[in-house]
Amino acid sequence: MKNNRILLSHGSGGEKMHLLIQDVFIKYFSNPLLNKLDDSAIFLHKNFNFAFTTDSYVVHPLFFPGGDIGKLSVCGTINDLCMCGAKPLYLSASFIIEEGIEISILEKVVRSMSKTAQEAGIKIITGDTKVIEYQGRNNLFITTTGVGIVDNKLNISGSNAQISDRVILSGSVGDHEVAVLTVREDFGLNTKISSDTAPLNSLVEDILSATSFGESGNEIHTLRDPTRGGIATALNEITSKSEVGILIYEDRIPIKEGVRAVCELLGLNPLYAANEGKLICVASKDASESIVAKMKKNRYGRDAAIIGKVIASPNGVWISTLTGGKRPLLMLEGEQLPRIC
Amino acid sequence: MKNNRILLSHGSGGEKMHLLIQDVFIKYFSNPLLNKLDDSAIFLHKNFNFAFTTDSYVVHPLFFPGGDIGKLSVCGTINDLCMCGAKPLYLSASFIIEEGIEISILEKVVRSMSKTAQEAGIKIITGDTKVIEYQGRNNLFITTTGVGIVDNKLNISGSNAQISDRVILSGSVGDHEVAVLTVREDFGLNTKISSDTAPLNSLVEDILSATSFGESGNEIHTLRDPTRGGIATALNEITSKSEVGILIYEDRIPIKEGVRAVCELLGLNPLYAANEGKLICVASKDASESIVAKMKKNRYGRDAAIIGKVIASPNGVWISTLTGGKRPLLMLEGEQLPRIC
Repeated sequence: MKNNRILLSHGSGGEKMHLLIQDVFIKYFSNPLLNKLDDSAIFLHKNFNFAFTTDSYVVHPLFFPGGDIGKLSVCGTINDLCMCGAKPLYLSASFIIEEGIEISILEKVVRSMSKTAQEAGIKIITGDTKVIEYQGRNNLFITTTGVGIVDNKLNISGSNAQISDRVILSGSVGDHEVAVLTVREDFGLNTKISSDTAPLNSLVEDILSATSFGESGNEIHTLRDPTRGGIATALNEITSKSEVGILIYEDRIPIKEGVRAVCELLGLNPLYAANEGKLICVASKDASESIVAKMKKNRYGRDAAIIGKVIASPNGVWISTLTGGKRPLLMLEGEQLPRIC
Repeated sequence: MKNNRILLSHGSGGEKMHLLIQDVFIKYFSNPLLNKLDDSAIFLHKNFNFAFTTDSYVVHPLFFPGGDIGKLSVCGTINDLCMCGAKPLYLSASFIIEEGIEISILEKVVRSMSKTAQEAGIKIITGDTKVIEYQGRNNLFITTTGVGIVDNKLNISGSNAQISDRVILSGSVGDHEVAVLTVREDFGLNTKISSDTAPLNSLVEDILSATSFGESGNEIHTLRDPTRGGIATALNEITSKSEVGILIYEDRIPIKEGVRAVCELLGLNPLYAANEGKLICVASKDASESIVAKMKKNRYGRDAAIIGKVIASPNGVWISTLTGGKRPLLMLEGEQLPRIC
């Protein structure tokens, strides 16, 4: 690695993070279950497929419009379980707390976690607490880990996108990153953007029940929640793992007016902005319309749309722009914003 | 709570941490699996008992004689699985890394995790990386979570200690805490103390195979690894959950000469000092000798000894001193040393 120190961009979900994962983590931990690098690892035990996933949350500030670190930590791990089609079973939660934080703040976060877990129908059954000495930063970090169960008939994976599949997006992009950004700085905008932080297990259940399991397999091939690095990064991961191309249509991607305004003001691209309550679904052409219809009936999929399709070539992600052009949508090299999740 | 801010002692494993767990975490997360507060939660799925446990590691410095944060993070979670009799299946690992840390340091930690996991025969199959902005602290935190499978015949729990049971300790106490302490400060001592950090799954397997499963249940009733707060805290937890008393004999507790010297110098009590490669086993009187014999054959149980017994009354932990007296061994109220694990 050219640079021998950890940079913020190593945590951004982009190119540098992928290099770090390969050059350090995969190098030493390498095993077939880990190396798939899906949102959850799937392990087989006694004929059951279990999903297993972990995420640390370091978002700053702890509270933002539409959510807080607690809600985020429960939703994020539930969503990672769902993205392999798993039904979430249980969560663990581990807290690293800086000395001096008000207990009422911790309590507010824990209450939010409890409420979110209840909505999603999942229980937090084990945990840990560590206190670090005062650093004047009000640091509070939460790591949640989830276990779920995957129907043996399913084969949902980042590497299973197939040519002529349709790419479905469950709603507008960039809400979470812009919500966190606008609470850090006052841009004098009238529009208030709320984070989309939400548990997506009911949405995934809905679309799985909308599709039938034929002999040739399932109609839902890939699910991914476009968090750090946004939909551009998630789509690039899918094309890279599935060795296909994806063409998306700029005019079909829902972006809220306020999100677009903040992004233009700051030179951010909303396609790279983090979401915490959205999913990308790659499904057979035949099933795609009924999946969108089912999504629209769920509160977390009301703005669902088919935004593109899987193509044989060229590889990578391509965007058909409003002006009729076509340009590649590459992996993010730097970071847009640190500590958004 | 009288004090409305988080203190270091909230993370020490003692009285304050137990209050925080009750007043904040149990208050909102309360459910039967969590409320047992054993080292792992046990959940039943399709007739199988799974153990699930998580721990964050914040030890400072990252490297110390006998171990490092990586080895600690793998051993700690393996050991928590073992303490309910589980066979560890898989681990997750989540990293929170401060901007500016040398990648070679991260690599050294990851290599150590890999080596430890290999020794214990367990795989790390999923993970996460978050980078936080520069704080001038070289912060590196690791959260590991483990899943294991528990033999349905077992009933090992903090609440299962029974009157006249024997209390077995697998080896000397205080090594880990003193090792971390002496690398922070030079006390000019000749003796070099190494941390006892070790994966205890082979030791637990050995003692489980030493005992037979009679109709009246098992002979091993409680297992606990005396980490934060040391054996005094672990024994207090057992008496509190099992509603019994425990009497231990001071002269039977193995303490290394160097550990004793450092503790005397600093006014620390080694019975409250953290261990990371020791276990307490509460077992039927009849089985206790054969359990000790089996422990002594394992590299991590060579100094095993019966240190006491479970009594009907008085409740709580009592120590029979070298001078013939008997005094209570209470829960720790403050903290001995922050960031030891």
